[in-house]
Amino acid sequence: MTFRQNLACAWAKQDSLLCVGLDPDPARFPAHLQGRDDAIFEFCKAIVDATGDLVCAFKPQIAYFAAHRAEDQLEALIAHIHAVHPDIPVILDAKRGDIGSTAEQYALEAFERFRADAVTVNPYMGRDSVAPYLAYPEKGVILLCRTSNPGGSDLQFLPVGERGERLFERVARLVAEEWDCAGQCALVVGATFPAEIARVRALVGDMPLLVPGIGAQGGDVEATIKAGRTADGVGLILNSSRAILYAGKGEDYAEAARQAAMETRAMSNRFR
Amino acid sequence: MTFRQNLACAWAKQDSLLCVGLDPDPARFPAHLQGRDDAIFEFCKAIVDATGDLVCAFKPQIAYFAAHRAEDQLEALIAHIHAVHPDIPVILDAKRGDIGSTAEQYALEAFERFRADAVTVNPYMGRDSVAPYLAYPEKGVILLCRTSNPGGSDLQFLPVGERGERLFERVARLVAEEWDCAGQCALVVGATFPAEIARVRALVGDMPLLVPGIGAQGGDVEATIKAGRTADGVGLILNSSRAILYAGKGEDYAEAARQAAMETRAMSNRFR
Repeated sequence: MTFRQNLACAWAKQDSLLCVGLDPDPARFPAHLQGRDDAIFEFCKAIVDATGDLVCAFKPQIAYFAAHRAEDQLEALIAHIHAVHPDIPVILDAKRGDIGSTAEQYALEAFERFRADAVTVNPYMGRDSVAPYLAYPEKGVILLCRTSNPGGSDLQFLPVGERGERLFERVARLVAEEWDCAGQCALVVGATFPAEIARVRALVGDMPLLVPGIGAQGGDVEATIKAGRTADGVGLILNSSRAILYAGKGEDYAEAARQAAMETRAMSNRFR
Repeated sequence: MTFRQNLACAWAKQDSLLCVGLDPDPARFPAHLQGRDDAIFEFCKAIVDATGDLVCAFKPQIAYFAAHRAEDQLEALIAHIHAVHPDIPVILDAKRGDIGSTAEQYALEAFERFRADAVTVNPYMGRDSVAPYLAYPEKGVILLCRTSNPGGSDLQFLPVGERGERLFERVARLVAEEWDCAGQCALVVGATFPAEIARVRALVGDMPLLVPGIGAQGGDVEATIKAGRTADGVGLILNSSRAILYAGKGEDYAEAARQAAMETRAMSNRFR
């Protein structure tokens, strides 16, 4: 089954557009996990176990593991997700981008070492820097298009060419019209710009959009969903990381995360 | 000492613009290293030991380590370079790019875990995605500007704004005029486009340019140096990876690498 098929099943079966982002920051872990060698794995595993019936995807952010020499814990975490929730796709948020020969190595890292179902990729180096990920026909490739951070406009909002098109719109068109030959691609579009989500949706048909910025980054759920949903009320992977991971500060943090995930899923389902 | 000062000393002391890129591909290792657990470290260590008096920098490419679960060997390799050649800066080629809170984690990875002196970063997400690296005042931040791969033109060559400026020129100007407040930045500009190297040099003053594509990627050394050198005959970090690493196939690969590095250094010094 391909990433796109897997995702479509998860949207339906879980009745959810919610993706829980796994950005483990040991400084914010509850006291009972502090100092443990496997704290990162244990923290994330409890979140996965508490929210696995509520999400359409999990998205571990590799930087939070790499900064703490915890690649082995990331491998174990993804293996755990596959074992407990074999139907839920795992998106490795890595935002890689390099020439073809190096991208082959990054594809090995994401798909063979970590066994992710999809990976986020930066489009700045162009089509051949993306091709090595697309060489895995069952895997998904999620390209940065319009990001929700303050500096996202520095390049992405520049007008390019003669039609007044913005760079992020050109990226959306390039991916939809030229790069995505086999239906493997998706795009990252930040929740803080609903009008731009609508513009990207108009350019890319039913391509999935990964939308960070729900929750801690302040994106408006209703506006996001109305701008980005497809005709059948799906098409979106709404990511929330910190607002769910750190909903509670104590030993019951996983239960607090479950409550936050339930509320976010219910809210988003009202607007589909 | 800052990365820029360190680099200036290495250019002078080593009389070299050559950077050896450490892209270890186990499939291309000589037979006597095949199957060893520490093959990646040993392969690269021998290259470092054979070329350390000929280079202004070493540039390990993290993908080649991550694909093989060899982060520990990368740590050991960089520690070895610092121990044996404390004056030679180490550039971690990682091309990271993410929102500020995640970029903080990537900066920890590059500068505290791996102890690199500089890291390559993708500019697509804008200024705040670069700031966390700049928060380390002694470290260098080398931004992708114009890359030498075939797809490099897909986005980087697009005309932006009203003055006929290309995206890579806008990136060069943004970095030189706005992002590089403390002289920490450098730019990646591919060797296959000498006219564009000259254009970037005109935009950024004496900022160092990291130029991949010497050797295996076919860039012309004379044209590159004449286009990119500063008035004092430096300003360039000319990277060669495969043409040096795999100059020999047998047990004498390190000696073959030394010969290739000597030739490349000598050739480049003729045109400074």
